[in-house]
Amino acid sequence: MSTKKENREAVLSEEREYHSQSSGIFFKLKRLLHRDRSDYQKIEVIENEYFGRILLLDGLVQTSERDEFFYHEMLVHPAFVSHPSPQNILVIGGGDGGALKEILRWPIKHSCLVEIDQQVIDVCQEYFPWLLPSLEDDRTELVIADGSEFIAKTDKKFDVVFIDSSDPAGPSACLHERDFYEKLKRCLNPEGIAVSQAGSPFYHLDSIKKKDAFLKKLFKNVCFYTSPVPTYPGGSWCFVFLSDEVQPLKIKRNPPRGLKYFNLDIHQAAFSLPNFLKNLGSHV
Amino acid sequence: MSTKKENREAVLSEEREYHSQSSGIFFKLKRLLHRDRSDYQKIEVIENEYFGRILLLDGLVQTSERDEFFYHEMLVHPAFVSHPSPQNILVIGGGDGGALKEILRWPIKHSCLVEIDQQVIDVCQEYFPWLLPSLEDDRTELVIADGSEFIAKTDKKFDVVFIDSSDPAGPSACLHERDFYEKLKRCLNPEGIAVSQAGSPFYHLDSIKKKDAFLKKLFKNVCFYTSPVPTYPGGSWCFVFLSDEVQPLKIKRNPPRGLKYFNLDIHQAAFSLPNFLKNLGSHV
Repeated sequence: MSTKKENREAVLSEEREYHSQSSGIFFKLKRLLHRDRSDYQKIEVIENEYFGRILLLDGLVQTSERDEFFYHEMLVHPAFVSHPSPQNILVIGGGDGGALKEILRWPIKHSCLVEIDQQVIDVCQEYFPWLLPSLEDDRTELVIADGSEFIAKTDKKFDVVFIDSSDPAGPSACLHERDFYEKLKRCLNPEGIAVSQAGSPFYHLDSIKKKDAFLKKLFKNVCFYTSPVPTYPGGSWCFVFLSDEVQPLKIKRNPPRGLKYFNLDIHQAAFSLPNFLKNLGSHV
Repeated sequence: MSTKKENREAVLSEEREYHSQSSGIFFKLKRLLHRDRSDYQKIEVIENEYFGRILLLDGLVQTSERDEFFYHEMLVHPAFVSHPSPQNILVIGGGDGGALKEILRWPIKHSCLVEIDQQVIDVCQEYFPWLLPSLEDDRTELVIADGSEFIAKTDKKFDVVFIDSSDPAGPSACLHERDFYEKLKRCLNPEGIAVSQAGSPFYHLDSIKKKDAFLKKLFKNVCFYTSPVPTYPGGSWCFVFLSDEVQPLKIKRNPPRGLKYFNLDIHQAAFSLPNFLKNLGSHV
């Protein structure tokens, strides 16, 4: 019904992400800081009065200054408090650097960030204040490569691998398939842990169940857990903790100070699943 | 920038609720089922492809067919599994009947629903399938009255009182003040529990802290807990459990069958608070 001029005005005045075909979240634009298309995806950074800077890839919110801590703390710290001695860390995706920032709070030896899209790194270095110091840390190695190809070729072994992917569309699609997790398992030390974001428990339950089915055949411990993330669809998010030897609820150490969300009570609580998510994973 | 005609089209094609002044949730309208103004508030029922029927009061989402179970199960069942013998129940607000539906799963003697706005009852009877059978249950008494005046005048005592209010604006404003909770306490049996919705831990932290400060002076146990609610601001919600004698984590009985969200693991987990909510309540 609306004209091209009105559409342009709407595009300039707000950003919206559909969570279902008929509902979603909107953000009024204080400023459009960046909008471009890389070889892989559309990259946007907007500034919103409430959330600060927000990164969107192909129109989907990846992170915001105001609420990034929910997602990144809950992606990273559950593996660190339950692994006996995490030293060599791999991040697949995560070009915004939020996961890396949390990883570097720990006394690790080495963290390798494998991001497919150099332009995500470049844009986030400019607009998100935590990325550059994390990349300049002596323990950080940045590799621009396809995560799936990287793990197929590497002869390194890791203690913890984080799959900080975008949704199963665009360049991240292969990171949600069984084949990827089979290769991934070969890169893990015996006590290794992999943690992946797994979508919205409310909107993406079918894909969570599908993932659960093949993961159970690959890992002894397949433990889903959840956390609030205000800017993600439905406001809460699902992660999966994968290991043959490590159980997430056998806690090995205290988290670092200065976290806004995570603590050991939250760690325990996050693995308690509501009835509609029960029967997921091999531990329940 | 837009004309009146465009505004009318936007109003007819979608409903939006602002969560901050610059962000929020939108719902495409499949149909507008009801829009009217009562003596107290604007009452709307919309039909959305994904969420089904949604009730809005003064433009704020109260409940939807698809996600009501998160809020109503988590409002009601924590008190029921921890009270020694809940028989006489009071609900202040809750005219949509969702809380009543959960209460009536339990073998109680009597449940009194005190709703200020007869039109909310009338509209919800027409559009939400669970309300009418709950009102027709022999154990239910419906009182159309101001909840604050009702508890000031009643000489009845209750085992559990639920404050299922809308936000601290409009007719619910007084239900968020210290004076209301002082009167409320006089209506509770010695082992009584009051549970109130307390807002979004993300967006309404200041009002949660304010409420915490005066509640601690009135009740021995002031225990905040949280739950996801996809259609509420930020996607997760805060509740407060109030009692002098009952502690929420001393579980007395199993929940009823057939719940979609609540179970005893979730009960325990819900009372674990993230760092940014710590130091709330008298139990932490």
